[in-house]
Parts: sequence; structure tokens; C-alpha cells
Amino acid sequence: METEMSDIIEQYRIKEEPYYRPVSDEIELYEAAYSVRMPMMLKGPTGCGKTRFVEHMAWKLGKPLITVACNEDMTASDLVGRFLLDASGTRWQDGPLAIAARHGAICYLDEVVEARQDTTVVIHPLTDNRRVLPLEKKGELVHAHPDFQLVISYNPGYQSLMKDLKQSTKQRFGGLDFNYPEHAVETEIVAHETRVSAEISGKLVSIAERARNLKGHGLDEGISTRMLIYAGSLIATGVDPVKACRVALVRPITDDPDMRDALDAAVTTFF
Amino acid sequence: METEMSDIIEQYRIKEEPYYRPVSDEIELYEAAYSVRMPMMLKGPTGCGKTRFVEHMAWKLGKPLITVACNEDMTASDLVGRFLLDASGTRWQDGPLAIAARHGAICYLDEVVEARQDTTVVIHPLTDNRRVLPLEKKGELVHAHPDFQLVISYNPGYQSLMKDLKQSTKQRFGGLDFNYPEHAVETEIVAHETRVSAEISGKLVSIAERARNLKGHGLDEGISTRMLIYAGSLIATGVDPVKACRVALVRPITDDPDMRDALDAAVTTFF
Amino acid sequence: METEMSDIIEQYRIKEEPYYRPVSDEIELYEAAYSVRMPMMLKGPTGCGKTRFVEHMAWKLGKPLITVACNEDMTASDLVGRFLLDASGTRWQDGPLAIAARHGAICYLDEVVEARQDTTVVIHPLTDNRRVLPLEKKGELVHAHPDFQLVISYNPGYQSLMKDLKQSTKQRFGGLDFNYPEHAVETEIVAHETRVSAEISGKLVSIAERARNLKGHGLDEGISTRMLIYAGSLIATGVDPVKACRVALVRPITDDPDMRDALDAAVTTFF
Amino acid sequence: METEMSDIIEQYRIKEEPYYRPVSDEIELYEAAYSVRMPMMLKGPTGCGKTRFVEHMAWKLGKPLITVACNEDMTASDLVGRFLLDASGTRWQDGPLAIAARHGAICYLDEVVEARQDTTVVIHPLTDNRRVLPLEKKGELVHAHPDFQLVISYNPGYQSLMKDLKQSTKQRFGGLDFNYPEHAVETEIVAHETRVSAEISGKLVSIAERARNLKGHGLDEGISTRMLIYAGSLIATGVDPVKACRVALVRPITDDPDMRDALDAAVTTFF
Amino acid sequence: METEMSDIIEQYRIKEEPYYRPVSDEIELYEAAYSVRMPMMLKGPTGCGKTRFVEHMAWKLGKPLITVACNEDMTASDLVGRFLLDASGTRWQDGPLAIAARHGAICYLDEVVEARQDTTVVIHPLTDNRRVLPLEKKGELVHAHPDFQLVISYNPGYQSLMKDLKQSTKQRFGGLDFNYPEHAVETEIVAHETRVSAEISGKLVSIAERARNLKGHGLDEGISTRMLIYAGSLIATGVDPVKACRVALVRPITDDPDMRDALDAAVTTFF
Amino acid sequence: METEMSDIIEQYRIKEEPYYRPVSDEIELYEAAYSVRMPMMLKGPTGCGKTRFVEHMAWKLGKPLITVACNEDMTASDLVGRFLLDASGTRWQDGPLAIAARHGAICYLDEVVEARQDTTVVIHPLTDNRRVLPLEKKGELVHAHPDFQLVISYNPGYQSLMKDLKQSTKQRFGGLDFNYPEHAVETEIVAHETRVSAEISGKLVSIAERARNLKGHGLDEGISTRMLIYAGSLIATGVDPVKACRVALVRPITDDPDMRDALDAAVTTFF
Repeated sequence: METEMSDIIEQYRIKEEPYYRPVSDEIELYEAAYSVRMPMMLKGPTGCGKTRFVEHMAWKLGKPLITVACNEDMTASDLVGRFLLDASGTRWQDGPLAIAARHGAICYLDEVVEARQDTTVVIHPLTDNRRVLPLEKKGELVHAHPDFQLVISYNPGYQSLMKDLKQSTKQRFGGLDFNYPEHAVETEIVAHETRVSAEISGKLVSIAERARNLKGHGLDEGISTRMLIYAGSLIATGVDPVKACRVALVRPITDDPDMRDALDAAVTTFF
Repeated sequence: METEMSDIIEQYRIKEEPYYRPVSDEIELYEAAYSVRMPMMLKGPTGCGKTRFVEHMAWKLGKPLITVACNEDMTASDLVGRFLLDASGTRWQDGPLAIAARHGAICYLDEVVEARQDTTVVIHPLTDNRRVLPLEKKGELVHAHPDFQLVISYNPGYQSLMKDLKQSTKQRFGGLDFNYPEHAVETEIVAHETRVSAEISGKLVSIAERARNLKGHGLDEGISTRMLIYAGSLIATGVDPVKACRVALVRPITDDPDMRDALDAAVTTFF
Repeated sequence: METEMSDIIEQYRIKEEPYYRPVSDEIELYEAAYSVRMPMMLKGPTGCGKTRFVEHMAWKLGKPLITVACNEDMTASDLVGRFLLDASGTRWQDGPLAIAARHGAICYLDEVVEARQDTTVVIHPLTDNRRVLPLEKKGELVHAHPDFQLVISYNPGYQSLMKDLKQSTKQRFGGLDFNYPEHAVETEIVAHETRVSAEISGKLVSIAERARNLKGHGLDEGISTRMLIYAGSLIATGVDPVKACRVALVRPITDDPDMRDALDAAVTTFF
Repeated sequence: METEMSDIIEQYRIKEEPYYRPVSDEIELYEAAYSVRMPMMLKGPTGCGKTRFVEHMAWKLGKPLITVACNEDMTASDLVGRFLLDASGTRWQDGPLAIAARHGAICYLDEVVEARQDTTVVIHPLTDNRRVLPLEKKGELVHAHPDFQLVISYNPGYQSLMKDLKQSTKQRFGGLDFNYPEHAVETEIVAHETRVSAEISGKLVSIAERARNLKGHGLDEGISTRMLIYAGSLIATGVDPVKACRVALVRPITDDPDMRDALDAAVTTFF
Repeated sequence: METEMSDIIEQYRIKEEPYYRPVSDEIELYEAAYSVRMPMMLKGPTGCGKTRFVEHMAWKLGKPLITVACNEDMTASDLVGRFLLDASGTRWQDGPLAIAARHGAICYLDEVVEARQDTTVVIHPLTDNRRVLPLEKKGELVHAHPDFQLVISYNPGYQSLMKDLKQSTKQRFGGLDFNYPEHAVETEIVAHETRVSAEISGKLVSIAERARNLKGHGLDEGISTRMLIYAGSLIATGVDPVKACRVALVRPITDDPDMRDALDAAVTTFF
Repeated sequence: METEMSDIIEQYRIKEEPYYRPVSDEIELYEAAYSVRMPMMLKGPTGCGKTRFVEHMAWKLGKPLITVACNEDMTASDLVGRFLLDASGTRWQDGPLAIAARHGAICYLDEVVEARQDTTVVIHPLTDNRRVLPLEKKGELVHAHPDFQLVISYNPGYQSLMKDLKQSTKQRFGGLDFNYPEHAVETEIVAHETRVSAEISGKLVSIAERARNLKGHGLDEGISTRMLIYAGSLIATGVDPVKACRVALVRPITDDPDMRDALDAAVTTFF
């Protein structure tokens, strides 16, 4: 009736190699960081492949990966664990961070800057040489499994005065930069993921590049690789490319009529 | 005593074809999006038929539809599920999103922008290639049923600086635009739904069109198709059309005396 | 030990005809609206008879009436229901809205604009053609009883920029305007309710009319019909009319010395 | 083990006549209001005898008195009641308002304006001709006992733009004004309560009158009758009158050196 | 297993005479106030001996003393009590204020102005002639034990516009002023508490006096008697007086380099 | 099944000497402070060795160390303890502060200024001569074990107008200043911790010194000793020093392109 702990950790193991196209020496640097269990911070815009990269590394290193999408309503208990009521009283249930620390998974806190301060403070003792997680409500001090590593993602463009990581948190992580891949690489990725031709894939990347140039000039964010894959998927099912781009690339990111016209024009330039 | 899960999902199945009058190629585009399980965002003003459209598509695709009216007091647990106390301790109860993901329903989050940030972040892992829903409090990772699809609605006119979807959320959806139908189509819809004559139905649409022109000039929002159906229903019971329009079209949307006069005049122009 | 459901609904049935003096065609319009189960919005100032009207209509239509005084601390659960702990675990308890929907009562949400947004959103699926109430925490979809109708009240003078119904809520209701009755009618009402003579009743109405003219000129709200009934009741017990008016009409609504003098003068003009 | 309900209501019965020195016709007016069960609002500054008056009236009318000191953290449940966990599941416990309504006590909500809006809305159905209290969480509609009456207190000097009773609440109450008694009456009261001589008592009143003239000129509030009784009590134990006044009249109400000097000077003028 | 109530109250009894060096007639005035059970307010800056004074008086009067450090997260329940879950259902547990009222202790609410409004309102019925504490959640009215007295502390320098006691609260207390003792007395106190010589103690007091002159000129608060006792304690263990003063007097109260230099210079002037 | 208390306190005992390189007389001063159980405040920037120092002192004094990372969502109950549900009702569980006070550990509250006010007030009675911790919810007064000491850390550069310790809290602690060590000492530390050569270690320290000079000129905080140890660790695994510095020293602390260039240039100056 109760899921066994071995099952719990097994479901976080990645069975097949996730497709990841390296852009620079990020794989080697990550492996070195993992070898000394340095906590890592992946920096870059939405949808450029940070999540895929950490999945690929977890697969490559043969470690389970526990991903947590952070948000401002998440409490420290959501990460660390809590007591649940049981037939025989209360029963402690590890949260995702405690599961990862105890069983040696990579714990990936996605968009950690969205979390409240208590989430970010709770990871401090896991990120220095103590490598412990105090379960204060349970009165237990978890010493992290030797395989455990903490990884966070961070979108520098999003930070405001109100919401930023504290310096005392940032200093506990090594940093790796990510960005949208260059034209040829991104074309290869979109073609690989959607099975459209390299020609169509290249056109989609060109449209995205135009939109990315508009970032800060009426667009909050450019068109991501993930959106190109959505558009390509629609095209692969037989949808007219112009309609596919409208649905997958233009409508989602702007309601401004002029900006829509500009993006629609970019689409028809290539299709 | 306890409702069975098969019953739970069955009650969300739509037994009869919901009337929907297509306006453009929205049915074909939605079918293509569903075929690749692309998450969809339906954009448009209040009462123009977005909810009816998704009901029609769920019926057409033969999938159960779970609709959630989002609001700012809704928590992630309201979507995902929670532990309930039972005679034998705690029992997990799937929330509507977990039910939909597990059993292959279409999950429709109506007015998602009203929800707090944790609701929108909780759907992220369901909207990329992972298609998983982590039930963190239960320590379970739900892999979405192959039939599962996520749909959200979004009213662009409502968004303020304070309340908008994050770019990293918007980029996870394909977009379809909706608006009030053109005169002939809307006349057909109102007549079909209320059983009034096409003539009366057409007059009601004409009144609505006058009011829609006043949007932004003293009216926050125009008269919707849904309101026309209310007015038609009253007329069909024998209520005087002028009184029916006053009760169903004018009184609900404005308390400003000048605006009431203007709308009342529009009513008497046609009836 | 547990109150039976049939008892619960029975206690909301109105046994005797509540006195209501119609002002215009509001009874006929309401009956037509009820015949198509159109949700209704009663608009008008405090104490002018909206609550009495809906009680009268519930009696006339032979339906139970469940009234909920809305407030900003009321949650959706207060309307919909919640799980309670029982000897054998948790037991679901329908809230007033669920009781009304399930058993075919008229549900009257008084001053709905005071409620938080989740209250108003929770009623949406009950106010369109679906007529359902999702009990999300219980995983049940209540299909409203054919007799069920939703009625809300709304005081247009109270609304501020901060607190107003959303357009998407307003559009789901037909609207009926209410105001203080004209002199003869109000005199008849006060005399009927307090058993004072028509002469005294008429004087009380005249005082109220003077005060209503001061609304916006130092008074937030005029003297309501309800207050006149209070004053009449005191007079009927033998209290000096001047003192009765001071206690029941003047002291409650203003602490401003000049305004008190003005109102006291109006009292002594008539008594 | 469990306190019986009859005991609960008995402990609110006032056994001995509370000393109250009438100032005007407030006793007769209150009796008339009670005879028609009109809800009453007692208005006046801190410490001028409102609480004592309602205790006196409860004793005179032979009804139990349940007093609730309102505050901004008080919830509707604190007034109405809640479910408590019991050996056999949950057990409903009436709050003070429900006890009063059910058993026919006078319920006195002291400083009601401090309460949150839900408290004030919860009393509405008890203050019109319905005289009911819906226990929504329990699904019960309490019809008030014929002896039940609601009384609230209200300090007009305290209200700010942020915190005031809603007009729709004020209109549900008759109003009685209170203020500090005139010199001779207050002297009589202080002498009666403290057993100091009329001479000393009169001097204390004179000091208070000087301080009350400073209200709004550096003092937020004057010296109340209650404070004079404190000072008199100290003097009656043998404390030097000047020291007693400093401790009981001056130190509590101001930390401003100039104001302290002014008040100390007033003290030494009389002692 | 369960602590007995007699034990609970016994642990608040002060076994040995707490050292207190009277400054003026505060002991006599307090004894008179206690003899009529007048609630008392002790006013003065941090660390000048208010807490010690009330401990001394509790010992002198032979009454138990229950001290509560107030804070803005403290609720009325923290003072009054709450229901706890037990093997046989819920069990009521008195809070510190209820224990004190029931068993005749002196209840000392330290820094009461920090508490939320509900804390200060909850004490009102205990501070007038009723001397009752309503346990509203339990439905019990506690009549205070004849020995019970309420004492609060208040630091006038701290109050802001946002945080001050309400006038209706202040008026319920007699007031006693406290300040740092004069040179000779403070020297005697520090020498007595730390066992350093009168010479060293006098030098410490002189340093403090210099710092107190800087209050409002770069220092928020001067050096308190308590801090001098800390410094003396370090010196008594053999620490160099200059270092002891730096650790115990200067480092804790300022991070401003100039102010540190000024205070360090004051230290080296005397040592 | 339940962890024994002796095990709980044992897990906080430090088995091996933590490496700490003294900078001044801080060890002697701390020992003197501990001998009189003076509460201590360690002041200094992020990552300069405060946590390591208190670990070293706990080891040297042979006392268990309980460290709590404070945060703004931490409640007083998180420190003091709470009731948990058990098979036989509720069971009290000491929080870390209560465990430390009861069993004679050093309790280290890291970044205490982040905590809400109730946390800082809860420690007051432990920091004066009473040395007690009231467990108000349990009705118990814990007298601190003779070995107990309280230590807090405080980063003066972080405090804002909104978030600072209250003076009445600061005055309860002796203060010790910490800063980054001088060149030779820091070189020795980095070499000792990472096993890189003194030459490489010295270069890393030189880079940090350049960055520290930029603090306040575009950098919020300089490069800490901890970050140098991260960089050294990467170099020790064979990573190119320039890349290691980029990942461990530059990327984590700034996203500003100019500042990145300046820091990258500092790196290439030395490597």
C-alpha cells in the first residue's frame, strides 16, 4: 500500500539517454564540479536547455535526478519533509531534498529565485563542507550521501530588486552560463527533436533569431528553442507552416497588434 | 461509501454533443495540437465561447474534460491533491490535475491568470517533454497518461502589470485566438440556443454590437454572446423584449446613468 | 445525534408569507427569470427590501431559501463544504451552496461583493448552461437540482476601485433594480410593520426623505425603511416620538454635530 | 468533566446589582429598546461607564450577559463556534454569540469596530426581523431565543478612515450617547467606588476636567472616570494624593515632558 | 507523565531574594498598588532593571511570577490557552495568563507593545473591576484569584506611530517610571553583581554615562546597566578591561566606525 | 523506532578537530565569554569563517553544537518545540533551542537577523541572569543546563532599515568581529583545505583581494574564502585554473558584463 523507499528513488532514475547537444565545454566542467560535489548554478534564459542538460548529466553520471519547480508559495517543509498522520500517530515523510540527500540523488531546484527565503536558507548547510540537512522538526541531522549534489537554475534576465538570490547563497555555488545555441546547432536540435527537414528547421531558427533581436524592444523574452520544437511538431503533423508558427511562436508571447504583425511578417518571410 | 475512481473519471465524460458553431479553422488546429499533445492556450474575452469550444473538442475527441475555475485563493494542493484523514490514518486524494494526468482527461484551467504563481509553476513539468506531475507531498512522480492534454484560457484585456502569466509559462503553450462571432454566425447561435426567431436573435446581436463599440468609452466590457442567450431565453418565456433586454443586457453591466440611457436607447431602437 | 439532511433543508423552508409590498413589475420579472433558472442580481441601497423580496419570492415559488451573508474572510470552502473529522475518519459536509444546489433551494448570497474572489469564481459553473458545482476536494461534480437558482445582492453605491465584481461574474446574472419605495408605499409598509398610525408612519417617512436628500452632502447613506420600522416600533411601545427618532434614526448614522443638528431639526419639524 | 450548558449560561448571570448612577433617561430608553428587542449601540469615550451600564441593565432585566472584547484578530468562528476534536470525532462548540442567541442572553460586543469585517457581517441576520444565526459550518440555523438582544459599543473619537462600521451595519442598531458625567455626579461615583471623602473625590474630578480640556491639545484622550477610581483607591490605602495622582492619572497617559508638567501642576493645584 | 498543576505554578515561585537596589519610593508605591490589585505599567529603557524589579516584588510579596516576552507573532491563544489533542480527544491547556489568573500569580507581560492588538484587548476584562478572563474557546469565564495582578513593561523611546498601546489600554494601568540609576547606585549594583572592585565598577559606569550622552547623536540607545555587568563579569575572569569593554560594551551596539572610535576612546580614557 | 534523546544530542557532538586558523585573540576572548556563559554575537561578512570558528570552539570546549540557519519563515515554535500527534495523543518535541538549553549544547543561530521578531524575543530569557526558556505551549519553564551557551551571527553589511536586530536584543550579547584573513593567513587556509600549492593558493587570494576592492563599486560583496576553496578544489581535480576561477569565483557573483570582464582580467593577470 505504501510505496517503498527503493521504489521512490528508482522512479527518479533516468532510463534512456536524454538527447543533449553540447555547446561548449559544459559537460567536462560539470563532471569536474560533480567530482568534488561542488553545488552548481545553471544560468540562462527560459527554454534554452538547462533542464535537459541536467537530465543528460544525471544519466551520464548514472545518478537519480529529483527536480523541484520552485515557486513563491513553496515552504521549507515542501523541500525537507513533514509529519503525516498515520493509523499509529504521525509518520515522517521526507521531502524531495531530504530524499535526494539521503539516497544520493542530484537535486535540481528549478528557478530557485522564485522560492521564498526559507527555501534558499534551508540548502545552506548542504552546500558547505558540512553537507548536512537538519530536519529540525524531526530532530534529525541527515548527513548527505556521498553521491548527493545540489544544482539550481537561475534566469539572470528575470531578477528584480525585489527578488534575487542573497549573496550568501550565490557564493555557495559554482556557475555555468547557458544561452540559445548558435544557428547550426539549434537547427540540428530542432530537426532532431521534431523530425522536420533541416531546411524547415533552419527557417524556424531564423524566425526565432529575428524575434530575439526584438527582446527589450517590445518583447519581454525572445522565442525559445522549446517553442521552435513545438512549431516543428505541428508542421510534422501536416499543419501549414505559417499557421503552425502563428499558433506555436507568435500567439503565445504577445498580444500587442504591432508586435504580432512584425512577427507574422517574419514568419511569412521564411515560409 | 467511497466513490470509485472509474466513476470519478466517468462523471467528467461529455455524453451529448455540445453545440458549437466553428468560426474559422480552430477545430482543425486544435486537433493537430492534440495529436502532438501540445498544451494549448485559448485567448479571448469573457463569454465568447472558449469554454463551449473546449467542451465540444473533448466530446469530439472522446476524452473526459476536467474544468477548474482558477482563482487567487486556489493553492497548488487544490490542483494536485492532498492527504485526507481516514479511519486508518491519512489517505491521498488526487486533485483535478492529478486525476486528469493519471486517467487521460483534458484538463481545462479556466482564467489561469487569476491563480497564484504556484498553480502555474506546478503545471510546468506537465507541459514539456517530461509530461510528469510530481506529487511532492506523496513522494510520487505521475507520468501523464498518453491521452492527457492541458488547456488554459486567458483574457488578454484583463491582464494588468500585477497579474500576468510569466513568460516561462506562456512559452509552454500554443495559442488560439477567440472573439465574438460575426453578425450572421452569432445570430444563428443565439437563435439555436434560445429558440427565438432569427429576426429577434438578429436584433439582439445588433444591440450587442452597439454596446461592444462602447467598450473603453465608459463600458469595461461589451455585451457577450452568453448575455444575448439570457435575453433570448426571457423573451422566449413571453417577457416583453425591452424589459428582457433591460434585465439581461443593461442592468448587469453598468450602474452609470448616462451609459444606461445609451444602452436603453439602443434597445428601443431595435424593439 | 446527526441532523438529517431532510431536516437541514426543511429548516430553510419559509412557513408564512413574508410581507412584501410590490413597487413595480419586479415579481413578474423574477418569476420569468426563475422559470428559465436565470441567475439574478438584486441591486439597491442598504435596507430597502432586497432581502425581504427574495424571502417573499421563495415563499411564493414554494422553494427553500438559503441566505449567506458574504464577507471578506469567507472562503470558498465556507460555501462549498469541507471534510470534518469523524469517529470513523473524515466526513464530507456540504456548505450552504452545495446544499442548495443538491436539494433545489434558492441560494441568496447577500452583499456578494464583500467576498473574496474565490467565492465569486466558485459560482461560475453554476451560472452557465453547465449548472454544475465541482466539489474539488471531494472529487465530485454536483449537477444542480432543477429547482436550484442563484441570487446575489449588490449595493452599487458601495463599490470602490478595490472592490467590485469582475465583469465575467456580472455577465452571468440578470439584474433587477431596487430603491426606497415612494412616499405612500413606504408609509403603508412602516404602518403595517409597526402598527403605528398612518399619520405617524407618514411623518417618519417624511423625515427619512429629508435625510436621503443629504446623502452625499455629509451623510454616507440615507435613512432606510428598516430604520423607520425601528423608530415606529419604539413609538408603539410608548416612547416619545422625538426620543425614538433620535435613538433609531439619528444617533446610528452620524457623529457629526452639525449633521445631528440638521437631522434633529427635521425630527422636530414633524413631531 | 464537560461543563454543562446550564452551568455555562449561569456563570454569565449577574448576581449582585452593579452600581450605576444614571445620567439622563438612558435606563428608560434602553428598557423600551429591549422590549422590542432592538439591537443597541452604546457610543462614548473610553472608561465613561458603557460597560457598567450594560451590566446594570442585564441585572435589572434579569438576563445573563455575555461580553466579548472585540479585536482585529478575532474571527467569525470565535463568535459563532467551531468543531472541536473529541474522543468520538468532532464535537460542535457554540461560540459566545451562539450561546447568547440560543439561551436568551444579552450579548455585548465591546469595541466592535476593532473586529474584522466578518464579525460584523455575522451579526446581520440576528439584527433584522429574521433574528437567526446561521451556523454554516454545522449546517444549523439558530432561531434566537425571545430574550436575546445584541448590544455593541462604539467610541466615535477612535474611528479612522480605515476602520469604521459599515453603514449597513450601523443602520441595524438604535443608538445611545454616553459621556463623562457632570461634576457632582462624577464626584458621587468616585466617592462611592473608592470610599474616599467627597472632598478628595471632588478634587480628583476637577483634575480630570482640566485634563479633558487638553484633549486634542497634546493629549489623545482625557482622564476617565475609571482612572479617578484608580487614584482614589490608592489614596484610600494611605498613599500620598500627589503620588497617587502621578501613578494613576498622569504617568499612564502621556510621556511628553511638557504635558506631564502641565498635568502634575494641575494635581498640585488641588492637593 | 503530565506535569501537575501544583508543580506548574510552583516552578514560577522565586526561591531566593533577587538583588534589587531601590532608587526611589518605587517599592512602597508598588506595594500600595498591589494591595488594591491595580494593574501596573513599568516604563523605562532597555536593561535598566524593570524585570529585576518585578522579580524582587514577586519575591517580597511571596507570589509566583509568570513572565511572558511579548512579540508580534504572539496570538491571544498563546496567552489564554488552547485545546490540545489527547488520547481521549481534546484537552484544554491554560496559557500563562490563564494560569496566573486562576492560581493567583503576578503576570508580567514584557514589552507588551510588541504584541498584536488581540493580546492587549484580551487583558481588558482582567484590568477593570470585573477581573475576569473569558476563555471563549472553552466557554469558561475565569474569575481571577484574589492574589492575581497584571504588570506590563513599556519602553517609551521605542514607540512609533505604527506601534503604540491604545489609550483604552493605557488607562487601565497605573504607571511607574524607571531609568538608569545615578552614578553611586549603579556603581554599587555593578560591583555587587560582578564582584569587581568599586573602582573598576565606577569606571564602567563612567563609560556608560559618556555613551548615554551620545544617545540620539548616532547611538540608538545608550549602554545599559546589564551591559556593564557583562563587562564586569569578563574583567572578573581576568580579561583585560579594554578588551572586555570592547567585547561587551562597544561591539554589540554600533557598527559605525566613527562611533566605535568615540566609544573606544571613552574606554581608554578610564582604563 | 523513535530516536533516543541521548542519540539526538550525540549527533551534534563534533568528533574531529575542525581546522581553524586563528587570526587574533578571538579564541581566548571566546573562552572567557564561555566561562561566564556570556551570549556571543559573531559579526562579519559571508564566508569569512564564523561558522567554522564556532565549530572549532565547540570542539575545543567539548560541547555539542546545534546550528540553526535562521530565515524569515521560521517561527518561535521551530526553535522552541511543538506538540506532535502520537498513537496515544499529543507528544511534545523539543525544538533545537530547547534541546540545546536542556542538554547543555552551544546553540548557534546563523544569520539571526533574518528571523522574525518572535524568534529573537524568544531567546531573551535565556540571555539574562534568569537563563530560562519558557515552553509556554507546554506550560514548562526550562532552566538552562550549566553548559548551555547561545551564539548568534550577524552580517553588518546586510542590515537595512527594515531588518535589524532590536537594541534590546543586541544589548544581550558580547560581540566579536570577523573579517577575511590577511594574505599570508588566507593563503595558508586555502592551501590547507584544497591541497593545491601555496603558489596557486596565493594567486587565488590575490584575485579575491582585487574583487574585494570592487565591493561597493559594482559588486555587492567580494569573493569569500569559501569561494577560493571551491576554485582550488576544481584546480586540484585538473581543471584549467582560468576556467576554474570563472566557474567558482566570477560567474556566481555577477551578471554585469563589465564587472565580469574586470574579474576575468584579474584572473588572467595571475594565471
